Amino acid sequence: MLPAQPQTDSIIALATPQGISALAIIRLSGKEVIKITEQLFTGKRLTEQPSHTVQVGTLGMPDKPIDEVVVTVFKEPNSFTRENSIEITCHGSPVIIREIIKLFLQHEVRLAEPGEFTKRAFLNGRFDLAQAEAVADLIHAETDNARQAALNQMRGGFSREIHHLREELIHFASLIELELDFGEEDVEFAKRDDLKQLISSIQGYLTLLIESFKQGNVIKNGIPTVIAGKPNAGKSTLLNALLNEEKAIVSDIPGTTRDVIEDEMILGGIAFRFMDTAGLRHTEDKVEAMGVSRTRASMKKAALILYVFDLSRATTEEISIEENEVKQLGIPYLKVGNKVDLAPPKTLKELVNQDFIFISAATKKNLDELKEAILSRFNVNEVRQGDVLVTTLRHFQKLSETREALSRVLAGLESGITGDFLAMDIRQALHHLGEITGEITSDDLLANIFAKFCIGK
Amino acid sequence: MLPAQPQTDSIIALATPQGISALAIIRLSGKEVIKITEQLFTGKRLTEQPSHTVQVGTLGMPDKPIDEVVVTVFKEPNSFTRENSIEITCHGSPVIIREIIKLFLQHEVRLAEPGEFTKRAFLNGRFDLAQAEAVADLIHAETDNARQAALNQMRGGFSREIHHLREELIHFASLIELELDFGEEDVEFAKRDDLKQLISSIQGYLTLLIESFKQGNVIKNGIPTVIAGKPNAGKSTLLNALLNEEKAIVSDIPGTTRDVIEDEMILGGIAFRFMDTAGLRHTEDKVEAMGVSRTRASMKKAALILYVFDLSRATTEEISIEENEVKQLGIPYLKVGNKVDLAPPKTLKELVNQDFIFISAATKKNLDELKEAILSRFNVNEVRQGDVLVTTLRHFQKLSETREALSRVLAGLESGITGDFLAMDIRQALHHLGEITGEITSDDLLANIFAKFCIGK
Repeated sequence: MLPAQPQTDSIIALATPQGISALAIIRLSGKEVIKITEQLFTGKRLTEQPSHTVQVGTLGMPDKPIDEVVVTVFKEPNSFTRENSIEITCHGSPVIIREIIKLFLQHEVRLAEPGEFTKRAFLNGRFDLAQAEAVADLIHAETDNARQAALNQMRGGFSREIHHLREELIHFASLIELELDFGEEDVEFAKRDDLKQLISSIQGYLTLLIESFKQGNVIKNGIPTVIAGKPNAGKSTLLNALLNEEKAIVSDIPGTTRDVIEDEMILGGIAFRFMDTAGLRHTEDKVEAMGVSRTRASMKKAALILYVFDLSRATTEEISIEENEVKQLGIPYLKVGNKVDLAPPKTLKELVNQDFIFISAATKKNLDELKEAILSRFNVNEVRQGDVLVTTLRHFQKLSETREALSRVLAGLESGITGDFLAMDIRQALHHLGEITGEITSDDLLANIFAKFCIGK
Repeated sequence: MLPAQPQTDSIIALATPQGISALAIIRLSGKEVIKITEQLFTGKRLTEQPSHTVQVGTLGMPDKPIDEVVVTVFKEPNSFTRENSIEITCHGSPVIIREIIKLFLQHEVRLAEPGEFTKRAFLNGRFDLAQAEAVADLIHAETDNARQAALNQMRGGFSREIHHLREELIHFASLIELELDFGEEDVEFAKRDDLKQLISSIQGYLTLLIESFKQGNVIKNGIPTVIAGKPNAGKSTLLNALLNEEKAIVSDIPGTTRDVIEDEMILGGIAFRFMDTAGLRHTEDKVEAMGVSRTRASMKKAALILYVFDLSRATTEEISIEENEVKQLGIPYLKVGNKVDLAPPKTLKELVNQDFIFISAATKKNLDELKEAILSRFNVNEVRQGDVLVTTLRHFQKLSETREALSRVLAGLESGITGDFLAMDIRQALHHLGEITGEITSDDLLANIFAKFCIGK
């Protein structure tokens, strides 16, 4: 399917956050926007200015000036959207912003949809779909690593890899199709063993990309980390200590926490979502019981469980039984021995050779050691300029589908299947790669992707 | 006192609101900012670009690019601050904004104080103090009228009036001082009657400006409007009906409202702050009693009281007693007859010729009539381009002080006081006018004014 046709009507949107501030940017794109803005602007004639220049003047009707503004003119194709574009920098007043947008809406301009500027940039060939998606990731990056990964993708690093893969596959396909042209003659232009080796090498490359998603996803979306344990083990105290604020209500009464309380914290450049949960026990209290079942659900979805033991009360036998229960979930966990300052010497002696992290959440003792242990579970290196990481679930899925199709090709080669069947699977693999970069696309897919963008981008 | 000396070191600030958005502007000003930005920018050499041009490129260190940005170059004196200035338009990500500002802070740039860009513009003679103050008013304008009034002031309308007044006074002073030069010779260069007439005319002009503050203040700050009445008269229902949302908790139980609940609403271009209050009665409930005393305090500070009567229960005698209590406060009030649909015909008949506004807050009956009645109390015309209104308490005070000093001059002329005493009071009047435009200023005054600005303005 061909990409949707670009539209050229005039669109407008506020590109900066809502609120009172020194400045705000209102952005316009479309064939006529320079002409339209010129009519509403007292200053130099905008249509006569070169691209990439700014003009100072008054925006509004002659009898009702709205604000003194700075207007930047971008002429097609030298703009973000590759269309004529205008950026109005006005004072950051909600009233001014409203009046300016209202004025343009009365002059053949319509409100832009979310992501419509980036969508136009994509449809006008400024960049491919993976790069367009990186624009949204860049804006929503919560850590410097996530920002760098998105910037690399926006600059086309990932797209180049996909392009390279496609070329290799097309080379392979051309060999196969040459054979097909000779039909029944049973010619083999490429040795089957060489073909197998080529596909294997592409598969290896794909696998590297697919595996980078594990790290890429952590960098982009953060790590869900559940704090679990028996009632009164000190889970809420630990959450508060980690966040360094009184986020969760703490009391001596077992069953204080019912809802799952969460907050985010950046450790070593990675965002962790810490979730404090209801203590695990059988209870007759209906609300608490609902809390406990939420705890179990959260634990199953966690990337890491901080399992908190109350060393001041639990015996080593009890601890061992509890640990077995956690182990059965198959989720990575850390054993956190809390209230170490109140623990009987006997308990400490018995546990000292196990891999416990001994802390006191109440006195904030050994928290740095705990943070290091958490971080060491996620071997995330700093993302550098040029690193290629798959950070988007959609790309991960398409890459996996490509690998699957190629596995069928490989199996076909093994079993000596005919060229036309091989060609079908190769076309399938090429299709999936094309969906990543947007060479293959649909209106639904585009709508889905750009709906996640901010207004004004 | 001379204005403080302008500084020329390099300052930086985010000029758009915090938050995730398509774009953000980071702004720099100072002698060296174009050079410094050039070092951190991969793209065309910024120092070689003409003023008022934009360059697309990458910001960051070569091994650690932060973002693809658009940089606008403004060269002194053709910038807002009249210094070299840079505006960086980057993606609206808090991480990117933080990294960019961090990078500049490592390169001899410091964070700007609130209002420091506007302060530099003032100190560099771009505009006077009243115009600088209007910049903040423009940003904080809550209605279109407030925006227009601030824009007029920023464009120098008010400053021209003050300048005109000063010139008249200086003319007067020169006549008096000429007489002083001739010392004991008892020469009168100006007839005393002509002088009196000149001062009277200046006074008349001052009075017009001072009186415009009443309207200007309403336009800028909105009107505090208190909804008061006995318990269960329907005050909270009325607040909710006016705001068209469930702002205040409504119940049949008298004494439901305790805190003063307020929200703003724009009527006819004016912002009204409606305050719902605890019903007025003697009560043993301590919390309610505190609420009632807050009601009385609010009523005394109101610009308008909407006094709500419960027509379904109150007799005309009771109504008349209540009204007398309100009247004693000396605050303008509207008599709102609520629950008109449940009122006994007798009550309605007795009240129909009094100036009641009959409504039903619960069924939203006659609310438009009430809104019109509220508006008619504040005869605010639409502010037009060129209208001069005093909107700032500081200006109002300085104008009043000027008028006082001139009254002393007038009294002096009446009583035939000598020229040197007259000259003293005239100098005082000129001093007060100079404080408005910033010809007379002090570091404290400036610090006070600019502290109210946004960061980045």
